[in-house]
Amino acid sequence: MRIVKIGLMGWGTVGCGVVRALRENAGVIRDRLGAELELAKVADLDLETERPEPVARELLTRRAEDVLEDPDIDIVVELIGGLEPAGSFILKALENGKHVVTANKALLAHRGNELFRKALDQGRSIRFEAAVAGGIPLIKSLREGLAGNRIDTLFGILNGTANYILTRMTEAGLSFGEALEEAQRKGIAEADPSLDVEGVDAAHKLAIASALSFGSVIQFDKVHVEGISGVDPLDIRLGREFGYDLKLLAIARHADGRMEMRVHPTLIPAGHVLASVKGAYNAVYIHGNEVGDVMLYGLGAGMSPTGSAVVADLVDLARDLADGSPDHVPPLAFRPDRLREIPIKPIADVVTCYYFRFAALDRPGVLSKIAGILGEHHISIAAVIQKGREVEGAVPIVMQTHEALESNVRKALGEIDRLDVVVSPTRYLRIEVPHSGSLP
Amino acid sequence: MRIVKIGLMGWGTVGCGVVRALRENAGVIRDRLGAELELAKVADLDLETERPEPVARELLTRRAEDVLEDPDIDIVVELIGGLEPAGSFILKALENGKHVVTANKALLAHRGNELFRKALDQGRSIRFEAAVAGGIPLIKSLREGLAGNRIDTLFGILNGTANYILTRMTEAGLSFGEALEEAQRKGIAEADPSLDVEGVDAAHKLAIASALSFGSVIQFDKVHVEGISGVDPLDIRLGREFGYDLKLLAIARHADGRMEMRVHPTLIPAGHVLASVKGAYNAVYIHGNEVGDVMLYGLGAGMSPTGSAVVADLVDLARDLADGSPDHVPPLAFRPDRLREIPIKPIADVVTCYYFRFAALDRPGVLSKIAGILGEHHISIAAVIQKGREVEGAVPIVMQTHEALESNVRKALGEIDRLDVVVSPTRYLRIEVPHSGSLP
Repeated sequence: MRIVKIGLMGWGTVGCGVVRALRENAGVIRDRLGAELELAKVADLDLETERPEPVARELLTRRAEDVLEDPDIDIVVELIGGLEPAGSFILKALENGKHVVTANKALLAHRGNELFRKALDQGRSIRFEAAVAGGIPLIKSLREGLAGNRIDTLFGILNGTANYILTRMTEAGLSFGEALEEAQRKGIAEADPSLDVEGVDAAHKLAIASALSFGSVIQFDKVHVEGISGVDPLDIRLGREFGYDLKLLAIARHADGRMEMRVHPTLIPAGHVLASVKGAYNAVYIHGNEVGDVMLYGLGAGMSPTGSAVVADLVDLARDLADGSPDHVPPLAFRPDRLREIPIKPIADVVTCYYFRFAALDRPGVLSKIAGILGEHHISIAAVIQKGREVEGAVPIVMQTHEALESNVRKALGEIDRLDVVVSPTRYLRIEVPHSGSLP
Repeated sequence: MRIVKIGLMGWGTVGCGVVRALRENAGVIRDRLGAELELAKVADLDLETERPEPVARELLTRRAEDVLEDPDIDIVVELIGGLEPAGSFILKALENGKHVVTANKALLAHRGNELFRKALDQGRSIRFEAAVAGGIPLIKSLREGLAGNRIDTLFGILNGTANYILTRMTEAGLSFGEALEEAQRKGIAEADPSLDVEGVDAAHKLAIASALSFGSVIQFDKVHVEGISGVDPLDIRLGREFGYDLKLLAIARHADGRMEMRVHPTLIPAGHVLASVKGAYNAVYIHGNEVGDVMLYGLGAGMSPTGSAVVADLVDLARDLADGSPDHVPPLAFRPDRLREIPIKPIADVVTCYYFRFAALDRPGVLSKIAGILGEHHISIAAVIQKGREVEGAVPIVMQTHEALESNVRKALGEIDRLDVVVSPTRYLRIEVPHSGSLP
């Protein structure tokens, strides 16, 4: 039986997941693939710390070159994470004629275009199913399963840590800080959670997934990003009174020749199938012009789900190598010469519905003043809740708008916040209604 | 640019979906594939009825041989449906050196093993993404995306008509007959809905999906099938009081060397992500030993979603042909020589929780008698609701059990139904809790 030799770089959590899956499922993998995936070497600077998945001593090395320069190794699996030295290692692996499987979304978001070009020049392949939405076969679905579609929209819950925190804030009424602390205690959030809670990790993934969906080069620096650290549980509660749940949504749209990419806390209808995605789960809701609405759901992180995605790439790649076609499917779904730099729609041009919470003194005429300013900026009100109770000396006036232009919203809120009856900055959230998952 | 010639057999709803997708998305398909998918011929007995997607006169033919024997045609797309003549046409196409794409789940459920063997012998390929769950890239996910897993369970809402009917019975309190009539009026149910509402269509799909998941040959005749035509809205209502929603679930499990395949109305927890799948939508919830829980959701039928799946197969196949590897991925995920006839667990051996509704006279000692018989058969009660109101002269006693063995349940209910205080046969439903989609 043919043997494909794997060199693993990074023996951390995901690395252990790969080691485990290759060992535990060797039988079914062989039965599917008709070849053997052999772990030939494992490189990590730390060989001392005990791991959940042990590796035979003779496979271990501290030297990256032992993997990168081993002529027997067919595929390098990069699970170091971060920009460097991971980027240099991948370039070196490609130069040395190796194919690459990586879970490194930060690196691909920042340098994917360069790395894919290098792979093309070298006649080698980079696979990255594990980089977006972990165990969910999202990349494969976008690239192959939906190949007969013009994909126009993608709504993703792409960060399990943020979704866990929002779920706990929603269901248990915790503050952001309390929910974060709980997530850290449970090992769901990292000691430094900023990439996750500030939306950057979701933005990395969105940049990759939207390139694949729309036929664009990766344009990570153009993603509009807002995190959840500023979310007030009061807005989650009031949003629910309008029938919405709050999610950190990664949104990509392709329309009228422009591409919209944004990550921010978003209210979605409570009955929507995306709203039922709770805890550390991820989900991606996609609209294609033929298939309609599709959603993929599962765990987006963790040792085994991510390991599952890496192994799927290894199986695919081993198959393609056996057929002598490492570039069987283009990395970004479209042939490299067909990728375009699709112009970006700035956030100011986005049109969506909004939730506002005004903190105004309880005086006659306040509501009329606020409504007047909104009207001047072509923002029309769909619903209002004015609660009797005061919060910090002011009455919260909560509004839901019809579709409005973000730049108008910003101007209007700027004016409103300067009113002397408004005691603190208006909180606002965008509302999205991903294509209806209800009765067709 | 390379041109791949397609011969379409069956110019019905799905056929029109394929014609539409090939025309509408020709540009993106070319940009992804680097080849052109050309519709070269369309065969149908009826060329008169007007279609939503017209086809150039010169491509149309009434004679199957015009497609099957055209040496220019690379791929035959079989969308006639049913066992014959579709089966003979596919065999003929393979013999004539053509590859086949089909959406025909009934045919594959009944004769898939034979057809795949024939394709293998001929060095040709049969693709069938459209046969299970329509536009959802389920086959690809099971076969490739989750290739690093031992898949052990699959829970599917695989029939949109049945799901629509149950959704309307649940949300609007309609009877089965009323909901069916509404579905027919809306074009969601066919004039003869029996395959859909009696669970046979879902069983076709389950037989295919479970073969792919577990490495089995297709064993359609072993699926235990119960439909929804006998469902009483009262049981939906009472089930909700226990916190469950009713779905027509297709369940496959692989454990202890045996395979379980069953389709029946099933109560699932109302908060579960599968319970949020409403209307004509389909969803498949899969558990793999590495990835954990994954769910795929979308439209399982209809012109465009099914067309989307057919075109995805065409793109894949065109790619594989360009690389000279039509058997790039084995049709049933496992190498043909590794497929086994996994022994089937009969329904009598299934262990699950149950919902019972007894129709008993309101006399002292009735509950104790019923509970006594259940206890003798090792069925332990988790919850009871006894409603004051009489229904047809009897009081409904509703119970939820802990896990019990189906054969014990049948014996116990047989005894209970023979009691003279029990006025009509006990209604029972199975309860399943697909691996939790809640907080990890």
